Amino acid sequence: MRFLDLIEKKREGFELNEEEIKFWIDGFVAGTIPDYQVSALLMAIIFKGMNAAETTSLTLAMMNSGDILDLSDIKGIKVDKHSTGGVGDKTSLVLGPLVASLGAKVAKMSGRGLGHTGGTVDKLESIKGYNVAISKEDFIKQVDSIGVAIVGQSGNLVPADKKLYALRDVTGTVPSIPLIASSIMSKKLASGADTILLDVKYGDGAFMDTPQQALILTKAMIDIGVMMKRDVRALITDMNLPLGNAVGNALEVKEAIATLNGKGPADLTELCVKAGAVMLIQAKIFDDLDLAEAALIKQLHNGQAISKFIEMVKAQGGDPDQILNPDLLPHSLHLTDIKSDQRGYISSMHTTKLGHLAMVLGAGRATKVDVVNPAVGFVLNKKTGDFVDVGDSLGTIHHDTELKQDWIHEFKEAFVLSDQPIDKVSLIYDRL
Amino acid sequence: MRFLDLIEKKREGFELNEEEIKFWIDGFVAGTIPDYQVSALLMAIIFKGMNAAETTSLTLAMMNSGDILDLSDIKGIKVDKHSTGGVGDKTSLVLGPLVASLGAKVAKMSGRGLGHTGGTVDKLESIKGYNVAISKEDFIKQVDSIGVAIVGQSGNLVPADKKLYALRDVTGTVPSIPLIASSIMSKKLASGADTILLDVKYGDGAFMDTPQQALILTKAMIDIGVMMKRDVRALITDMNLPLGNAVGNALEVKEAIATLNGKGPADLTELCVKAGAVMLIQAKIFDDLDLAEAALIKQLHNGQAISKFIEMVKAQGGDPDQILNPDLLPHSLHLTDIKSDQRGYISSMHTTKLGHLAMVLGAGRATKVDVVNPAVGFVLNKKTGDFVDVGDSLGTIHHDTELKQDWIHEFKEAFVLSDQPIDKVSLIYDRL
Repeated sequence: MRFLDLIEKKREGFELNEEEIKFWIDGFVAGTIPDYQVSALLMAIIFKGMNAAETTSLTLAMMNSGDILDLSDIKGIKVDKHSTGGVGDKTSLVLGPLVASLGAKVAKMSGRGLGHTGGTVDKLESIKGYNVAISKEDFIKQVDSIGVAIVGQSGNLVPADKKLYALRDVTGTVPSIPLIASSIMSKKLASGADTILLDVKYGDGAFMDTPQQALILTKAMIDIGVMMKRDVRALITDMNLPLGNAVGNALEVKEAIATLNGKGPADLTELCVKAGAVMLIQAKIFDDLDLAEAALIKQLHNGQAISKFIEMVKAQGGDPDQILNPDLLPHSLHLTDIKSDQRGYISSMHTTKLGHLAMVLGAGRATKVDVVNPAVGFVLNKKTGDFVDVGDSLGTIHHDTELKQDWIHEFKEAFVLSDQPIDKVSLIYDRL
Repeated sequence: MRFLDLIEKKREGFELNEEEIKFWIDGFVAGTIPDYQVSALLMAIIFKGMNAAETTSLTLAMMNSGDILDLSDIKGIKVDKHSTGGVGDKTSLVLGPLVASLGAKVAKMSGRGLGHTGGTVDKLESIKGYNVAISKEDFIKQVDSIGVAIVGQSGNLVPADKKLYALRDVTGTVPSIPLIASSIMSKKLASGADTILLDVKYGDGAFMDTPQQALILTKAMIDIGVMMKRDVRALITDMNLPLGNAVGNALEVKEAIATLNGKGPADLTELCVKAGAVMLIQAKIFDDLDLAEAALIKQLHNGQAISKFIEMVKAQGGDPDQILNPDLLPHSLHLTDIKSDQRGYISSMHTTKLGHLAMVLGAGRATKVDVVNPAVGFVLNKKTGDFVDVGDSLGTIHHDTELKQDWIHEFKEAFVLSDQPIDKVSLIYDRL
């Protein structure tokens, strides 16, 4: 097989078969197919796409490029959840313990990633002593006994995706539905769970701009699930404004704790309950969404959800006192309240700008070698749909270094005001 | 400037400006822009194309990547001609001396190339002593004094094209009109001539399949000429059958000599006269095509054309006796006549197959390191439109090694017979 023939085949719009796609991925990982040929194929895929069979073949080939986690020692159905990412998305921190408190098994591996804040494991590392790098044996034992563990990605999981994504990132070949779908799904499938719930976000702060695009990506991922005979379901959710009010690592842990205590922001609580209900159906613990939702809401108020979180933190060496008293979590040296100098209804928010501000403050990484500051970030007091008067607090910036005028400017600029009241958009656009 | 931004710009269908294209080519040649980014851009160009301004910018940037020949010491208008290549195309051997015999200045640099036979310089090297590597000074002096010289490409002419073509060749990014046009034109412009006549071929044995495709490529090249304020004209010609009857290096030199003596095959003679007339107009020696054609035909019969060829051969150290008596040119050990086992009218010829046979016989190179055998090849006795009976000679294979049944088979297979007489297609499809 000659790789050049595969490039030309795709360039002319033909389908690549499973053997050809395996040849590509194996050769790329082994270094026998050079980057310059792979990037040409990737650009051809940008224009000619891949069908469901090709996308599944790519997912399979990538999944098989490294270790595949074997969770069979954990009794029961192992549920997993993946969010395509957004500003203020701390859902995993809440969802894991929440659904585990009702008996679902959550063996979650999370990345660190680049962007506005750290990933789920960076956030958990705000908690003193929390170990995200426990052994595979301890990870499996913990999920089997208490129902939930959240750890960092370990071992050699999907090396093909790492290498391919690095190439896509520098060759303008990121925005392709089949490439995005197979990247996400190969990692999820290698993580070994029985069921997957996808939270596919669209909007200003998300990877997909519109709900229509998010729907296309979602269908591509569900198609892979169907072909692989896995229970894959999805929510399509709005990311035109931050999720919850807190953005920043320890700040988000605090908000997650509040939510697990039944005192979280309405949007975050709603998403966790809706997503949790689907996961409980997937886990075959409930067979009715409404009943599952009611049970989940109960867990947020009867102390069971937060107890499960504390149990997980303890099991992974973290300090439970910081959960019982979140004021003990890392906090920044300075707090600056930002007041509005305009009056009106917030018609939209530049969520990407807010995400960028969080990164500049030190909450996220611009490059892999950057260190995340757990304490910094901001908490919003107003969001889309709210009315603000001149002098009202828009939010509070938590910072360790001296405040820069740029930050204030960027924060204020993120709020777009209108004279007219606006209707709030539903957080959940669709459920598949 | 970030190269990734240029890839994304082209991917989205936007135009790259002159500065951006210069940044690309300079960085690629310098090695600061990696192959894997350039191949992604090339594939985006396959799908999104480039307009005339972009194609000209690319041509300019490539032309300026190396030496540019300065022919200003040669008095008069320097005319050049370029063929996109075809089986049996020995036009340059005839055209150079022919138009020089009427006062045009032809300073021709030719490549060796891969393919069915060697390039023009390989063919000339069939002549004992002919030196294709004379110094730049001697080259210019020779053209100034006798009007014509044909040498190999020397120096560092358009290194960007060499590097870019090598990458296109292995990344499926060859078939792009703007990339082909800028590749050809950058080399022609760097060769320093005042005017360029393009012979753009289409058909089975050519780079472009149809006259329509050839027309698009031609217009792209003429657009570059217009933007660069050069007199660029073109003939679009049929390559569905070999040009002339001889295919092979020394065999083609012999046919060129016959043509310069007024005894060449009709198609080759016609093309040389038509092309030569345009070149004489470009050289401002004639201002009427018909008069120029008549003058050229006269030169083929009054001994002036062949005299000019002999003058050029002598000036470059070649043996004039081989021109006066072509039997002294290299000849193969064996000649095998191939007879038809069918009866009918030749409706078409698989010209690519014949080209392949010539290469297999040893007349051309499969890889750069191969050595061309000047003696081998074949001479056709029948061509498209001719009637053949069983037992009629289709042609003669000139070979040095033992005849293989495969060769006979390939030769015969190249002739497609029909019961019905067919109309011959005009050699020249269009003139621009």
